[in-house]
Amino acid sequence: MTHLNDLLDNEPVVAAAGTDMLADSIEQQGAAVARADWRPPHPDTAAALARLTADGRMVDANNTAIQRLLAVRPHLVDVGVARDVFPGMSDRTFFHAGPPIEWERASGPMRGAIIGAMLYEGLATDPEDAALKATRGEVELSPCHHHGAVGPMAGVTSPSMPVAVIEDGAGEGVSYSTLNEGLGKVLRYGAFAPEVIERLQWIDRVLGPVLGSALRSRGPIDLQALIAQALQMGDDGHNRNRAVTSLFLREIGGALVDGADAPTDQRLDVFKFIDGNDHFMLNLVMAAGKLGSDAAAGVPASSLVTVMARNGTDFGIRLSGTGDAWFTAPAPPVDGLYLGSFTEEDASPDIGDSTITETVGLGGFAMAAAPAIVGFVGGTAAGAVRRTLAMYEITLEEHPAYQIPMLEFRGTPVGIDAARVVRTGVLPQINTGVAGKVPGTGMVGAGLVEAPIECFVDGINALAETLQ
Amino acid sequence: MTHLNDLLDNEPVVAAAGTDMLADSIEQQGAAVARADWRPPHPDTAAALARLTADGRMVDANNTAIQRLLAVRPHLVDVGVARDVFPGMSDRTFFHAGPPIEWERASGPMRGAIIGAMLYEGLATDPEDAALKATRGEVELSPCHHHGAVGPMAGVTSPSMPVAVIEDGAGEGVSYSTLNEGLGKVLRYGAFAPEVIERLQWIDRVLGPVLGSALRSRGPIDLQALIAQALQMGDDGHNRNRAVTSLFLREIGGALVDGADAPTDQRLDVFKFIDGNDHFMLNLVMAAGKLGSDAAAGVPASSLVTVMARNGTDFGIRLSGTGDAWFTAPAPPVDGLYLGSFTEEDASPDIGDSTITETVGLGGFAMAAAPAIVGFVGGTAAGAVRRTLAMYEITLEEHPAYQIPMLEFRGTPVGIDAARVVRTGVLPQINTGVAGKVPGTGMVGAGLVEAPIECFVDGINALAETLQ
Repeated sequence: MTHLNDLLDNEPVVAAAGTDMLADSIEQQGAAVARADWRPPHPDTAAALARLTADGRMVDANNTAIQRLLAVRPHLVDVGVARDVFPGMSDRTFFHAGPPIEWERASGPMRGAIIGAMLYEGLATDPEDAALKATRGEVELSPCHHHGAVGPMAGVTSPSMPVAVIEDGAGEGVSYSTLNEGLGKVLRYGAFAPEVIERLQWIDRVLGPVLGSALRSRGPIDLQALIAQALQMGDDGHNRNRAVTSLFLREIGGALVDGADAPTDQRLDVFKFIDGNDHFMLNLVMAAGKLGSDAAAGVPASSLVTVMARNGTDFGIRLSGTGDAWFTAPAPPVDGLYLGSFTEEDASPDIGDSTITETVGLGGFAMAAAPAIVGFVGGTAAGAVRRTLAMYEITLEEHPAYQIPMLEFRGTPVGIDAARVVRTGVLPQINTGVAGKVPGTGMVGAGLVEAPIECFVDGINALAETLQ
Repeated sequence: MTHLNDLLDNEPVVAAAGTDMLADSIEQQGAAVARADWRPPHPDTAAALARLTADGRMVDANNTAIQRLLAVRPHLVDVGVARDVFPGMSDRTFFHAGPPIEWERASGPMRGAIIGAMLYEGLATDPEDAALKATRGEVELSPCHHHGAVGPMAGVTSPSMPVAVIEDGAGEGVSYSTLNEGLGKVLRYGAFAPEVIERLQWIDRVLGPVLGSALRSRGPIDLQALIAQALQMGDDGHNRNRAVTSLFLREIGGALVDGADAPTDQRLDVFKFIDGNDHFMLNLVMAAGKLGSDAAAGVPASSLVTVMARNGTDFGIRLSGTGDAWFTAPAPPVDGLYLGSFTEEDASPDIGDSTITETVGLGGFAMAAAPAIVGFVGGTAAGAVRRTLAMYEITLEEHPAYQIPMLEFRGTPVGIDAARVVRTGVLPQINTGVAGKVPGTGMVGAGLVEAPIECFVDGINALAETLQ
């Protein structure tokens, strides 16, 4: 049926855009109205958008950037230790999630995670001692994103922690992430109880070395292949990672039966630990995303968003064409489902580098693939589909490998164009865990949140300034 | 919004049922028509339906039967050997899929599987010898379904084969299935090449004993819990079992690292074999279904379908209220996607006990949970959803454990009511593998098929005859 026949065969409908007054009035008269969710470009970016359009390089630049993002082939190759893999990391250097932050402005879960990591590293005798030393500046804070790394929630990465090493099978890039601890009372949600520290010690004593040995014995694991399959099995890559964790255990399980150079009880403990944590693969999916977004960085005139990240105080983004600059706004509250007796009163604002998943076509952008996620983050399955569909409005490509069966295998929307965000007012959709605002609490829920428009307005204005 | 408001707020629409003439005419005049897919009851069942309705017991009987089906809790407890677990199984007894069949009327894949099993059992020296002996009646054929068992495709179960033992955690029932061989050139698709026989020998020498030992060391596995999770991970339980196989490997993997009493190389081979076969769990999902359908059998006046099964020649069903009787019709051709250079010319008609999945609310009835299956069996994701939605018309319940996230967690349609099938003309939707019609070929494709109406017509007439 042609487009003309569509018009001829169906009832006429009034299409309305912009202010609701017109549409409301027509509906009150009994006629059908199709409301287009259109908003005028953000007024503070009109001049910048005009300048970017007149300059003319942005379209090609964005194409270059997104093709670089899509060209990487993330392979998990090894597990190392942070102080060994990060050049110049001192015993007092702690990486963290989101844009740069100092202790004074740090959120509750960020402070909690720093305290926990100081206890774990033996830099403090108790939480009060740790907080006092942190206040005196005895640890040096630096964003994970400045070091090719990403960390979920607080994202605190201290020198003794094992880190997964992801290499580009099609290029030269490398990225890193810590290993996922599980849910509940865990460091990344700001908890620092003795059980948290003991688990971290087991991770560096057993999990890291055994996993590294298993990987070296079997060879690299193609993370893109696993993620692509997982999207056909109900994962979104951010808050639903049950399928990709299952597929990872299939990949690594043989080497835990025979291959990894470790005692039987350690190999069994590693198998059980991963089996017991359906979020285990989150950190590795994030690191795979970081490899792509780093590859896309540094293309002059490109409005591609290469980073979205939060530290619990600020939400920050980076654009490909604006180099190392961060564009920040206050981290928003999360519309969440809360665990047990927790409520929104207990929640810290949005936090974590895990929005790297949304930056590369996963997470909130792939929720149509993961309807069961609504049991964890809230909303409806129909809403999950609509969330993904809306993201095609602000992205540059449909991912060739990450396909959504329910959308007849359409690729996920990938490559956020900041220019389209300010032009349409459609904001990147994120699903996320929620940390307790009081340091030491841990996880209190999970939910949905939108990226703040201010970051994109500032980014587009700065991008226009780079043009000469 | 109330139903009345729905009428007031929307354009009026003509609803048309039955013959298309009225609807066509109205559409030609430019008005909207909602066509109800309604057909009059099958004319050959009018008297029987009237008698069943007048008798009045059918509704309660069906409720009893479906609640028994839903009450079972299938637990995988052990792996035994056919000759040990089936009372009275002689060295020359072969179980097979579908309703009773003799060699003379057996389909190509059924003959191929019988030949292969005779070679495997040492009852023949070569395929010609096997065929000759089978023609002479030297093996005794009996349906799996007569022995609490189910087998996919040809379903041939011979005395030396390992069989999984499934017990009801909430009752007394037991069911059985062979272990899945993988896809391609395999016995159940009628292949009997040396590689097929060698794989069967490895299965009885290594896979069965190691898996049995692993199960006994870790304890029973709750299959309903795994299947329920798998439906939230894109499985349908019939031709897409990647998720449930992954979850099974998570359950059993620890016992393969440490627990199973077997050499390391055997434990590793078992892990790799299951990892290499995304259909591994099909047989166990089928046996779980058999446990439910057997529990629902034997309720007087119930029109619940307890068995749908095919042997490649006949498609047969059984009803709860008609005891051991089979109601058969010619096995239909399958609308399939074909492998390599195979075409529909190479295909055997529909075959296998795997329609037990559709009988218990899985397979074609759960395709809305498994949109990615259309890459294997054909069709579209939207069609997969419509297929599931249509099945609510002919089923008695929505499954409390098997939920479909994309339908906002609605339970799958479960418990086929033969009375509703003949009343509505809506036929059970099945997805299935396709075997080559020439004995020895193996798998040629996979596709979609509907159960033949004649079985249901005969079943309902026979059910009416049982009323006194």
